Formats: sequence, structure tokens, C-alpha cells
Amino acid sequence: MASEKEVSNGVEWRIKIADGSSERLVPEANPASRLLLGIKSFVIGLALKAWKFLQKAWDLGVDDPRKVIHCLKVGTALAVVSLFYYMRPLYEGFGKNAVMWAIMTVVVVFENCVGATVCKSLNRVCGTLLAGFFALGVHSVASQSGQRFEPIIVGASVFLLASAATFSRFIPSVKARFDYGAMIFILTFSLVSVSGYRVDKLFEMAHHRISTIIIGTSLCIIISMLICPIWAGQELYTLTTRNMDKLTTSLDGCVEEYFKDSGSVVESNKKCHKKLQGYKCVLISKAAEESMANFARWEPGHGPFNFRHPWQQYLKIGSSMRSCAYCLEALNGCINSENQAPEYIKRHLNNSSLKVSSNSSSVIKELAITIKTMKKSSNIHSLVGEMNSAVQELQNDLKSLPKLFSPPSMPEADTPENKKIESISRTMVKMPLMEIVPLLTLASLLIEIATRISGIVDAVEELENLAEFKHASNDKC
Amino acid sequence: MASEKEVSNGVEWRIKIADGSSERLVPEANPASRLLLGIKSFVIGLALKAWKFLQKAWDLGVDDPRKVIHCLKVGTALAVVSLFYYMRPLYEGFGKNAVMWAIMTVVVVFENCVGATVCKSLNRVCGTLLAGFFALGVHSVASQSGQRFEPIIVGASVFLLASAATFSRFIPSVKARFDYGAMIFILTFSLVSVSGYRVDKLFEMAHHRISTIIIGTSLCIIISMLICPIWAGQELYTLTTRNMDKLTTSLDGCVEEYFKDSGSVVESNKKCHKKLQGYKCVLISKAAEESMANFARWEPGHGPFNFRHPWQQYLKIGSSMRSCAYCLEALNGCINSENQAPEYIKRHLNNSSLKVSSNSSSVIKELAITIKTMKKSSNIHSLVGEMNSAVQELQNDLKSLPKLFSPPSMPEADTPENKKIESISRTMVKMPLMEIVPLLTLASLLIEIATRISGIVDAVEELENLAEFKHASNDKC
Repeated sequence: MASEKEVSNGVEWRIKIADGSSERLVPEANPASRLLLGIKSFVIGLALKAWKFLQKAWDLGVDDPRKVIHCLKVGTALAVVSLFYYMRPLYEGFGKNAVMWAIMTVVVVFENCVGATVCKSLNRVCGTLLAGFFALGVHSVASQSGQRFEPIIVGASVFLLASAATFSRFIPSVKARFDYGAMIFILTFSLVSVSGYRVDKLFEMAHHRISTIIIGTSLCIIISMLICPIWAGQELYTLTTRNMDKLTTSLDGCVEEYFKDSGSVVESNKKCHKKLQGYKCVLISKAAEESMANFARWEPGHGPFNFRHPWQQYLKIGSSMRSCAYCLEALNGCINSENQAPEYIKRHLNNSSLKVSSNSSSVIKELAITIKTMKKSSNIHSLVGEMNSAVQELQNDLKSLPKLFSPPSMPEADTPENKKIESISRTMVKMPLMEIVPLLTLASLLIEIATRISGIVDAVEELENLAEFKHASNDKC
Repeated sequence: MASEKEVSNGVEWRIKIADGSSERLVPEANPASRLLLGIKSFVIGLALKAWKFLQKAWDLGVDDPRKVIHCLKVGTALAVVSLFYYMRPLYEGFGKNAVMWAIMTVVVVFENCVGATVCKSLNRVCGTLLAGFFALGVHSVASQSGQRFEPIIVGASVFLLASAATFSRFIPSVKARFDYGAMIFILTFSLVSVSGYRVDKLFEMAHHRISTIIIGTSLCIIISMLICPIWAGQELYTLTTRNMDKLTTSLDGCVEEYFKDSGSVVESNKKCHKKLQGYKCVLISKAAEESMANFARWEPGHGPFNFRHPWQQYLKIGSSMRSCAYCLEALNGCINSENQAPEYIKRHLNNSSLKVSSNSSSVIKELAITIKTMKKSSNIHSLVGEMNSAVQELQNDLKSLPKLFSPPSMPEADTPENKKIESISRTMVKMPLMEIVPLLTLASLLIEIATRISGIVDAVEELENLAEFKHASNDKC
């Protein structure tokens, strides 16, 4: 499929080339030269494609050098295990199959972050042990029941246990932690119970397999922990604080953009677009957060985190950030509406809206600092208070908005009464409600965002308590 | 970790029991009986936990019987492969290791849906072939370079190729399609190039391994396709149409709920809550959609879908549905605000808002029908037109909203002028803008949702063209 696509792309490319130089090509367009040209451009297209692919890979490596380091780590681990094969004592101790198991273990178990490697290693070891235990039981029952029933007993037990273990992989709590273990269980059980029929040295085989798996997994865990370790917990933590920063940038950016005078549109649009991408990262990071939290719980204490750091709480923080980001997404849609409020009405809400957004951002920024420093913030409550009073101010401004449409001619009390009434009713009917709807929506969504930020504050406070953050030194106070 | 939790739960449970019957227990509370009681309640707690787990598993099976069928399929495939071992001719032809490879292939390759199984199978076969080819090359170079350099050449080549293949797994386009193949490539290359040093029958081994892998993968593909197949494409298709239905139910439900008289609050809240969950499914289905679309492209034609069905287009439809769901989420937040518009203002926008929501729902329903029947809808354009005119109507109602606040005393022209002016200006100042802000936000978000629904319409129309849907019979016209 992929190669077909490449071909069609190559052809497209050729056609474009041919279009460009069609005058020269038309006279000598006989089938042979066309074929040659086709092959040539196909090869060039392929080379271009390969070049682009390599460029992309290079960018990926430059963008995150840890990925390159991970690859080198995998290469090292595999080379080390492969060289076991060349060491006579080890080879003679374990045999060729055993080295194979060690290689397989390294390939399958070595993951990008420490938590995933530990999770898979423990799953592999436990799954193998448990399955070996079961298989020995089945094997002893089967071997006592005579040659005729042996295949039936083995087949039935493989069928039953494999089905049950496969089903357990659908149960969410098992899937999150023991998915790989269940697979290894099925694999080992089938292998051992079947091979038990012929191989008499079952215990020796089990011993070899377990010891090589332990060698492989320990090697993986040691290499992944010692050489530039990537901790899933640290990643989750960084992702959370980075998402908070992005959320504040987007929030500030959107509201500022809305209230800015329509000056250099192109430049500001570009800038705004970049700022906007921030909250989109928050929207899509659910899956990444969940898998990291899953792996993080397998990791030993590292850096500022101890073994039982409440990683699940980061998921709650992430989900409350997402609920803010949803509002921001809706806000963004409303801001880009073609109905725009007149400048003088905008100006009326300008200050209070900006104040709400900047105070909301300050709260999130303070939360990010709380998480970054792992110290209880001393002034988060005052910041939340400021945010709430800014919300109150915005609500007051909204309340006083209708006054803008009350007759500005009130002082001119000397005009005839009738005329005045007319003018008033005209002003009222002309109240540009349609135009101010986006503005009101903005205000209402800002208030909603402030409410949802309280949810983030609660989640972070719960984290503070669970992880026993210390109080920050009260220098500021 | 899990068992520790169980223990602590057991203890908690025991304490509660002890609390209940503390009068009877206090006299005979010696260490031995306490220990016995502890063990007893621990066992009971464990049994309760196991019972709950089994109940959950049972519910899961009842909820989706296809999962149970999948497990039985895996069990069958494994039992069949295991029995190969008992068939003399096969066993003697391939040897014990070969049967092992077949078992391993089945365990690793058999996935829930056909696409995933085919993807993994092809990846496994291609990865093995490619790696075997490379390994033979390296092996021949290494064996010509003398005993001393052989380990160095083999080690270096394992290091280099394993690093490169691991890196390729980070490239998104490779990760989406060939992740498993890259892993198998590393595995096979290491195994073959290392074992090549000792085993002289390299070609025979390669032949056996490839043939057993092909036996294993074909068995998996045949079983997964023939016995109650679960097609990733079909699943994606069902998910898309079901999400559309959920979106319409939520949209209708939310708006109706808002405009309903505040009668039976508890009952309606429950009902609304159920309806609301719909759009939340849309919000979180991105990851599921992506993996299904990834697998679906490996599937042969099935049911109404041919091999090159444009599955990627479903992702676009899903993402435009999500952009609607974001607005719905924000809408939901605003509706639950404590500021509620007075009834008479609500009534003013009641009809047009309900019309917008019901017309928007009709559009989505029609799109769902289009996808379900795979026939171009003849009246989607008229429905979109109706939706747009409903939006226009809502906008008109919004425009005329200020008239509500114009003096209702206009006909009473007989009152003194001064009093009238006062009453007018009081009405104006008292215009309950704060209270109607949620209503206006609702209207504005409804309009935004209608705009975003156009995005769904565009995406579905693109699907119609790409998948060459036929025109529906024009019975309705």
C-alpha cells in the first residue's frame, strides 16, 4: 500500500515536471524515452521521499535527544546480551535457548520510560512464574492419566486458561496494570504444558528460563535507570506544569486579542494562533497522562518524588484543566464570530474582563509554581480572592451595561417632553444586543472559566495534602 | 501493592465488624482470638473482593458477549496449535522449537479485531523476513572475517540496527503502522545473527521459523475472520454513528431541560444527567477512533465496506463532532449557572432556541442516516437551510429582545409625561442584563454549535464523495 502511494506520488511529480518543460518533451515522446523518464522520475521521487523521511527523523531526534539516547540504550542492552553468547561459561551454563530468552526479554521489555520497563519486567517475571506453576500442576495430572487422555487434558486446560486469561485482559483494572503479565501467562502456560509432554527436563528448563528472564529484566531495569533515565512520573509532572503554562498563555492571549484595537491584523493573527495552540495541547493530553500515571506507580522514588507519590491526583488536575480548556475552545469560537460589539461597549468591559483573565492566569501560574516547587503556596487564597472579586467587578460592569443605552440626553431637560420620550424609546430599541452577544458570551465564559479554575485549585490542594507538600517560607508575607 | 491494599481493606472491614459487636468481643479479646478473628475477616474480605471482581467480570461479559467470544477464539486457536505438538508428522517435520514459535505467534498476534490481527501478522512476517535477510548478510560478512572479529562485527551490527529500528518506532508514521514489525525486526535480527555463530543449520532454522510463523498467523487470521469476526472498520463506523446519536440526544436534552418549567427537579435532573453523558462519550473517543482507523486500513473488504474505504475521513468527522461537543460542554456549564433569566424573557427565546436545537439535531440525525444507509441524502441541504433559518430567527428574536424592556406602558398615553419618563428610565436601568447573560450565552453557543455542525456536514459530504455513496432513491421528494 505504502509503495503504491509512493508510485502514485512519483507519477504526480513526474507530471508536474513534464508540464513545466512540455515544449522540449513533446517532440521526442516515444514509449521508450517515456518509460525511461518515468523510471528516472520514480527513482528521484523515491529518493526525495526517503530524504524527507530522514529529515523528519533528524528533526525528531534534534527535538528530543532523549529519544536518541533511548535507542542507544536499547542497542547497548542488546549488544551486551548478545555477547553473552560468546562467553563460554554462560553459554554452557544456560544453553543456546536460554540466551535466546534473554535477548527476547530485552527486546520486549525495554521501554522508553523506567516505569514501563519495570512494569513489563515484573509482569514478565510474575506471569512466567505463575504460569510455570500452573503448567507443572496440569502436567503432573496429565502424565498420570495415561497416554490417551494426556492430549485431551492438556488441550482442554490450555483452552480454558487461555480463554480466562484473555478475558481478564478486558477488565479495566487488570488491563491497566497486568495486561502484559496476562499475555506472558498464556504464552508460558501453553509452552510449558505442551512441551512437558516430550521434554523430561522440565524443571531444568523452567530454571533456565526464569534465570535468563531475570538476567534480561535486571539488565533492562539497570540500564534504563542508570543511563539518562526517563521517569514516567517526572514526565507526567512536567506535562502537567507545562499544560498549566499553556493554559494561562492561551487564556491571556485570547482575551487580549479580543480587546486589542484592530490594528496589524495579520501579525496579531499569527501570534494569536501560536498562543491558541496551547490549550489544544491540554485538550488532547488525556491519553498521555493516563498512560504516564499508570507507569509512574511502578517507579521507585526518584528526584523529589517518593515511591507512593499520588500520581492519580495528576489525572484529576489534568481533567479539571481540560474542563477549562473546553470553555476556552468555545470562547475562541465566539470571539471569531463576525458580529463584533462596538468599541465603546467593548471599552466598558475591557478592564474588568482583562482583570478576570489576568487574575485567573495568576491563579493557574501560582498553582504551577506550587507544583514546580512542591511547596504549599501561601498566597493562593488571596489570589483566588482577587480572581473572585474581579469576577464580581465584571458582573457589576455587566449590570451597569444597560446604563450605556439610557438616554445620554438626560441633562438636556429643556427639550420638549414628547421628543424626549421618542428619543429614549428609539435608543432602547436600537440597543445593539446582537452585536454585544459575543461580548456577553465572552464575559459569561470568563466567569465560567473562573469557576472551573476553582476546580483546579481544589485538585491541586488535594495533591498538596496527599503528597505532603511543605509550606513555602513566608518571605512574601 | 495490590495485595497490601487488600490487607488494609480487610482490616478496615474487620474494624467495622468489631465496632458493631464490641460488647460481646471485649471480654474474650485475648491475642490468639484476635489473631483468629483477624485472619477470618481477612479471608472473608479477600473472598468478598474476589466475588466483586468476578461480578464485575460477569457484567463485562454480559455487556459485550463478543468479548467472551474473542476469548473462546483465542483458546481455540491455542488449543489447535498445541495439538500440532501431538501430531507426529508435524512435530517431526518442524521440531519442538518450531511448534513453540507457532504458539508464540498465536499468543502475540491474536487481537480483538480482524484489522489488528492482520496488521500484527503482516508485521510479524515482514519483520521476520527482512531481519532474516539482514542477519544472513551480517553473518556471512562476520564469518569471513575470522574468529576474533566475529563477535565485534555481530555486536556492532546488533547495536546499530537495534538502535536504528528503535528510533524508527518513534516516527509517527512508522509507529502507526509498523511498530510491531520494527520490534520483531530487532528481535529476529538479534536472534539470528547471534545464533548464526553456533548453529550451522541457519537456513533450515530460518525456513522452519518462517513456516511456523506463517502457520500461526494464518490460523489466527482465519479464526478471527471466520468465527464471529469483529471488524475495526465496522466498529469505527458504529462508534461514529452512535456518537452522532448521542450528540443529538445531549443537544436536545440540554436545551429542553433549560427551557422546561422548574417542575419535578429531581426526576428531570436524573434524566438530564443520563442525556448529558452522551456528549462526554464524544469528547473522549479520540484515541479509540484513531486506533480503529489505524487497524481498519489493514482489513479486507467486509460488509458494505471495500478494501480502500476512506477510514481516515471518519477521524475528520469525529474531530468536527468533538468541536461541537466542546461547545456543548461549555453550554452545560453556563446552563447550570445560578443566575437564571426571568420566565418571560426565557419564553421570548424559547421557541427559536428549541427550533435551532431541534433543527441542528435533525441535521446530525440526517448525517447519521446518511452514514448508516451509505446513501447520499437528498434533503440534507434543505435541513441545513432550515437550521440556518432557525439560527436567523433566533438572531432576530435576540435583536427584538430589547423591546421587552421598552415601556409596556406605551398605550397608556394618558398618564402624565413626567411619570412616564421616570418609569421608562427605571425599566431601562432595571433591565436584568446579569440574569439574561446565561440565556444570551446559550443562544450564542447554540449559534456556534450550528456553525460547527456545518463542519460535520462538510466532512460527511467529503466521505460521501470519497466512498462513492450512491444517491438515495428520491421517494421523499
